[in-house]
Amino acid sequence: MALKKIGKQTVRLEAPPSIIATSSIVGPKEGQGPLAQYFDTILSDDLCGQKSYEKAECKMAMDSADKAISKAGIQKEVIDYMLSGDLLNQIITSSYTAREMGIPYFGLYGACSTMAESLSLGSMLIDGGYGDYILCMTSSHFSSAERQYRFPLEQGTQRPPTAQWTVTGAGAAILSREGNGPYVTHVTTGRVIDMGIKDANNMGAAMSPAAADTIVQHFKDTGFEPKDYDIIATGDLAAVGKELADDLIKKQGYDISNVFTDCGIEIYDSKKQDVHAGGSGCGCSAVVFCGYFYDMLAKGLINRILMVSTGALMSPTSSQQGESIPGIAHAVTIERMV
Amino acid sequence: MALKKIGKQTVRLEAPPSIIATSSIVGPKEGQGPLAQYFDTILSDDLCGQKSYEKAECKMAMDSADKAISKAGIQKEVIDYMLSGDLLNQIITSSYTAREMGIPYFGLYGACSTMAESLSLGSMLIDGGYGDYILCMTSSHFSSAERQYRFPLEQGTQRPPTAQWTVTGAGAAILSREGNGPYVTHVTTGRVIDMGIKDANNMGAAMSPAAADTIVQHFKDTGFEPKDYDIIATGDLAAVGKELADDLIKKQGYDISNVFTDCGIEIYDSKKQDVHAGGSGCGCSAVVFCGYFYDMLAKGLINRILMVSTGALMSPTSSQQGESIPGIAHAVTIERMV
Repeated sequence: MALKKIGKQTVRLEAPPSIIATSSIVGPKEGQGPLAQYFDTILSDDLCGQKSYEKAECKMAMDSADKAISKAGIQKEVIDYMLSGDLLNQIITSSYTAREMGIPYFGLYGACSTMAESLSLGSMLIDGGYGDYILCMTSSHFSSAERQYRFPLEQGTQRPPTAQWTVTGAGAAILSREGNGPYVTHVTTGRVIDMGIKDANNMGAAMSPAAADTIVQHFKDTGFEPKDYDIIATGDLAAVGKELADDLIKKQGYDISNVFTDCGIEIYDSKKQDVHAGGSGCGCSAVVFCGYFYDMLAKGLINRILMVSTGALMSPTSSQQGESIPGIAHAVTIERMV
Repeated sequence: MALKKIGKQTVRLEAPPSIIATSSIVGPKEGQGPLAQYFDTILSDDLCGQKSYEKAECKMAMDSADKAISKAGIQKEVIDYMLSGDLLNQIITSSYTAREMGIPYFGLYGACSTMAESLSLGSMLIDGGYGDYILCMTSSHFSSAERQYRFPLEQGTQRPPTAQWTVTGAGAAILSREGNGPYVTHVTTGRVIDMGIKDANNMGAAMSPAAADTIVQHFKDTGFEPKDYDIIATGDLAAVGKELADDLIKKQGYDISNVFTDCGIEIYDSKKQDVHAGGSGCGCSAVVFCGYFYDMLAKGLINRILMVSTGALMSPTSSQQGESIPGIAHAVTIERMV
């Protein structure tokens, strides 16, 4: 079989999988943002009726998986693999969701890059003939993430302007060998890039070099230019990181500013909602893609998008030991028609 | 393209990737065990000259990756993907190793099932034509795992007889489209199984139903019988879990006892080394496969092995919130010749 790699980090899929359904579920704050109409479910209570924020995140993820499967019109028994990860230590949200689903399961960890990571691996597995249907998903929860990564919420720590707000939300997508699109056509897999940023309250800056690296490499590998895309969306660089990435990409000869947006900017109203630089978390690019962008593709408002989920691969332990924050970004090209 | 799935959870690879090199590095305790002669490197100091156990684990993982690449006789620049995960929160060992390697990177989390998870995904990516070379690896460290999952070492907590000893070690394997074997021929992907065990000091029992489920499903999917294998090796069920798995498999009509072993039993001398039920950790099946079993395949002492890495998908947070311990097991068939 001929190698499907083109260039250094990209694969062109020969039998592009169709994303036959997506689902999105968000918390109350995200439901007050500008994308509210695009989400399947808006929680009125971010505890989801559970006894802890971690259990609430699991409930959200399970509901999101169920919803995507029911929208796809399939039974969960026909799904070949579930690819999922999240921010909680040992990705317990994903594992407990996989326990309920009973589907063969590959656990992933890509921090906030997980939605694109799961779509990348899932698309190659479908294209390669390893399954008919694959469930790709991820989630995050403000309250479970904040207390794990930073401070107890009860402490009321003041957040600097560069800080981002972890999205409470879960998104799921069903990939299929057959379907009417949109289709995943290219996969550009990121390398870990670390420019030495150590501030866990400035994740956008830490991730922006990785985003720029993957986007520029995608252009080089595929021959696409910025004008070939209707939207290039990073995952959660937010206001600080997006500007840095834009600059870094310009310095390498590509001007994407006309089509460049960031899910962490889209999801909240920065003037009315107190989120500082913008949104973050695995759930950020998951719900913005599964809700908003998927809807635009389905309605024919856009034809081709580059989804670039971005992850900060730090842990409180590594930060305490003086390590800097490595970033990664995975990109998938999604097209309305092939 | 025809679907390569056979049965419910198994894929038969059409162009089986060759494992062209492996490497293994272990700590002092593992170097005093019965498999010492099979490891590339035995550390005299489990701090590896570093300032923390987490940094020591990273150093081990990097050395293991470098060694595998040099044994394969390739440059790291030709490697298409690195697939890696570990036990530390946010898999920092893998991410920091990926930062040094600069290879496109998919982070995984499968707890102690990671070696088989990375070989599973890596083999499908090679077979599907997405790369020429893939680096599959994982690691664990007794001292970083113990303090993260259980108690500070300084506390000297007494361990019950069912407890296992986390292996200090890192293993890496290079998959290639071309090569003289051994070859990965089948991949059986596990489901999450949870029988309600809540004792973090009895991981073998928690994982054994998942191991039995995957092994039995592998037989059903492939038509293989126990006698078709020279060795069926679980990852880290150790003494308690192996006996349970053996029983569970017998109850479903398959007697594997003649060929059944467990990496957690192989790696230590249970009579002389104070490890209670046996070894555990991502590094356990990694170094036993990459050191011992790979050597046996290369020398023609065995022809076909089923490697079944087993993972306990718990976290201290989920345990504190009263959750039980879900288990998972991924299996790969590795054959000397195809």
